[in-house]
Amino acid sequence: MSEADADPNAAMDDNRLQPAFLRAIESALNAEDEGEVRALVKPLHPADIADLFEQLDADHRTALTTALGRDLNADVLAEMNDWVRDEVVGELAPEHVAEAVSEMDTDDAVALIEELEPAEQEAVLDELSADDRVAIETALSYPEESAGRLMQRELIAVPEHWTIAQVLDFLQTARDDVTDFWEIFVVSPEHKPLGTMRLSWLLTAPRWLGVSDVMQRQQTLIPVDLDQEEVALRFQKYALISAAVVDRDGRLAGVITADDIVHIIAEEAGEDILKLSGAGDGDIFEPVVDSYKARVRWLIANLLTGIVSASIIASFGATIEKMVVLAALSPIVASIGGNTGNQTMAVIVRALATGQMTNANTRRTILREAAVAFLNGVTIALLLGTGVALLFSNAQLGGVIAAATVFNLIIAGLAGVMVPLGLKRLGVDPAVASSVFVTMITDSMGFLLFLGFATASGLAA
Amino acid sequence: MSEADADPNAAMDDNRLQPAFLRAIESALNAEDEGEVRALVKPLHPADIADLFEQLDADHRTALTTALGRDLNADVLAEMNDWVRDEVVGELAPEHVAEAVSEMDTDDAVALIEELEPAEQEAVLDELSADDRVAIETALSYPEESAGRLMQRELIAVPEHWTIAQVLDFLQTARDDVTDFWEIFVVSPEHKPLGTMRLSWLLTAPRWLGVSDVMQRQQTLIPVDLDQEEVALRFQKYALISAAVVDRDGRLAGVITADDIVHIIAEEAGEDILKLSGAGDGDIFEPVVDSYKARVRWLIANLLTGIVSASIIASFGATIEKMVVLAALSPIVASIGGNTGNQTMAVIVRALATGQMTNANTRRTILREAAVAFLNGVTIALLLGTGVALLFSNAQLGGVIAAATVFNLIIAGLAGVMVPLGLKRLGVDPAVASSVFVTMITDSMGFLLFLGFATASGLAA
Repeated sequence: MSEADADPNAAMDDNRLQPAFLRAIESALNAEDEGEVRALVKPLHPADIADLFEQLDADHRTALTTALGRDLNADVLAEMNDWVRDEVVGELAPEHVAEAVSEMDTDDAVALIEELEPAEQEAVLDELSADDRVAIETALSYPEESAGRLMQRELIAVPEHWTIAQVLDFLQTARDDVTDFWEIFVVSPEHKPLGTMRLSWLLTAPRWLGVSDVMQRQQTLIPVDLDQEEVALRFQKYALISAAVVDRDGRLAGVITADDIVHIIAEEAGEDILKLSGAGDGDIFEPVVDSYKARVRWLIANLLTGIVSASIIASFGATIEKMVVLAALSPIVASIGGNTGNQTMAVIVRALATGQMTNANTRRTILREAAVAFLNGVTIALLLGTGVALLFSNAQLGGVIAAATVFNLIIAGLAGVMVPLGLKRLGVDPAVASSVFVTMITDSMGFLLFLGFATASGLAA
Repeated sequence: MSEADADPNAAMDDNRLQPAFLRAIESALNAEDEGEVRALVKPLHPADIADLFEQLDADHRTALTTALGRDLNADVLAEMNDWVRDEVVGELAPEHVAEAVSEMDTDDAVALIEELEPAEQEAVLDELSADDRVAIETALSYPEESAGRLMQRELIAVPEHWTIAQVLDFLQTARDDVTDFWEIFVVSPEHKPLGTMRLSWLLTAPRWLGVSDVMQRQQTLIPVDLDQEEVALRFQKYALISAAVVDRDGRLAGVITADDIVHIIAEEAGEDILKLSGAGDGDIFEPVVDSYKARVRWLIANLLTGIVSASIIASFGATIEKMVVLAALSPIVASIGGNTGNQTMAVIVRALATGQMTNANTRRTILREAAVAFLNGVTIALLLGTGVALLFSNAQLGGVIAAATVFNLIIAGLAGVMVPLGLKRLGVDPAVASSVFVTMITDSMGFLLFLGFATASGLAA
């Protein structure tokens, strides 16, 4: 995958599949030329074959699945988007899926199997060897999105009393039993973790030293039930490459490596943006009906907040009838408040998700956001108030809209902090439900303040 | 950091600093009892000491900086939030900073130094050894947020003709020269990368084998100028633990490891949510004035879109005067359109950022989003139209709001795809500017469609 010499006919450029290559694949699929399809796909990295599936339409995906046959292996399936993989796996025989699963690390195998329908799941599990089956069923017994489902069980553990030379000799014999590993775990006779050794220490340490001289005793242990978001935070915080997972009795149960965590981190951080917008899982490969169901809920919730605003406006009907320009200007106050609320809310949701916002700095953060909102409020109020006063030659109208804007922006800033914080304290995911409440507050307060000040000041009298 | 036995007096619980511990630190700082402060802080992991700084207010941070003295070392500074670190480093003598920097890997050192004022930067660089200074100045010569700034230069490279036994012997002598490493790079005599060996292969391979028998030739090379977001995508896509960075001549220049990338991934994915909301960097530790400047720009842009909507409403003043309920209902149509647009936009911005959306599936994605928007539009239109018709005993009014809603939601769905896509094609970051355009479209079309249909159908006549 060197990029030194760019070949115009290459499948890949700048790490993306090329349109010309995709067209070549599609025409080979249309011509049912399976030899040509396989020849084109063969040089690709498994992750790029997975990409290829994602970029083809449903018919070509089916054709490619058939054309690849057993070349559609564990590595390719492990890299595929969940929705696309569901579709592809649905077309494979259970024996084919079982063969792929048996070649995967436990974490990838579980990720594939947990998405299957119960009947398919059973059919695939039946085809597995007893060992693989037990490993996967144990993993499936842990909660969804927990460390137990992310970990792989294949790992190297050694006793504390060994020397480095003994560990090196042991590894020469362990060749066939493990896949890649990045750290060696030191365990007690009860298989409880005592410390870790990075492979680079093992390789550079004098061979006569004892394991206990080289190992690091301070280690980050991941409980098997821990939520994957929390696992990801620990990998970030302590800059881990791999970490031991311990079962409920404190025994070493598996290992999680950073390459699995990068997916989780991207997923969790990206999820917030989708949740905040009310777009559910928000995957472009999700079936239309699932997207519809996820999104329409939030639109209905938004409809209810719209009804609250409409009632407020309607209650000022007499004022509006006398001065119809108020109807034109009031959405500005509401909308700029909504915008301010969204800015603050996004900052707070991120700070809560990354663990930066804690009890210790809550008060400081609220004051900080109120200060930013106040500065913004004054700036926008000056611009809007002056503009309106000049345009309509009506200083009172300018004053009313300026006052409403300052108050609404301060309320918006506070709502943007307090709503996600309050939801978090109630145990609700702040990314999911904050938007609806913040929008309701900023919209209704925007209309109420502007139309209320206009009426109270006798502007339209 | 085992969590088997929770100690109520422990500094940490559930991976967070405890409020009681923070209060103990604050009172020791208030009492200027530096011995007590150091005793409390000593058992903490460097990442937790960094957290401690983030959670204290500005005065206590200064006091803690003084109290820790030289214990405020490279590891702690490397883990600190950028804004907080700026503040802390500003209070340290250049020799102290230089000492910490010289203990850091190049990537961490660069991350610290690149944020300093030019004069401070110069003062720190002057205190460094010639070697360290050259390493950092070379890194700083690469663009900000590029692979060259993320990589560390310390790595192990071996020639292809060695045996595994030779590599093992070499590592025994290399002990003092390198920090941790996860892969060994095989290079040509011109120092161009030929392949990699994971340490686990090296440890399990028979020692008489040649490097060329064990190494993997297919490798992901990162050009030194590559943007960090693209680097992060490659780590995710190919599940990398470390990757070689090559300079413009294709020579091995450094290595990037997954533990540095987890920060970038979290940062980049989290950035989108903040950019979409118009909150700039959106860090709770950012100075208030910087937050104000970043956010007020987008509020002013939003003000302009508000003026467009207001003009549209004002142009229907005659209709509204005759039927003031139209003024109350029109924000619902606009707002529900804005919501739909935001949902679609969030999905598309993520799909673009993760490389899932490409030329090959653009048409399919647009049709898909239009279908979801149509289903949502019909659902909401039925609810809203029926509700309005019944409430106001006016079937025509219900029909008008239903029709406006269906059209506005389809427009919103299309805008949610086309705007980020169009910005991306123009080379503008879709997360930054999409919101303003989408809101402008959904707001103005919402008012235009509803008031326009009402007027055209003679509803208020």
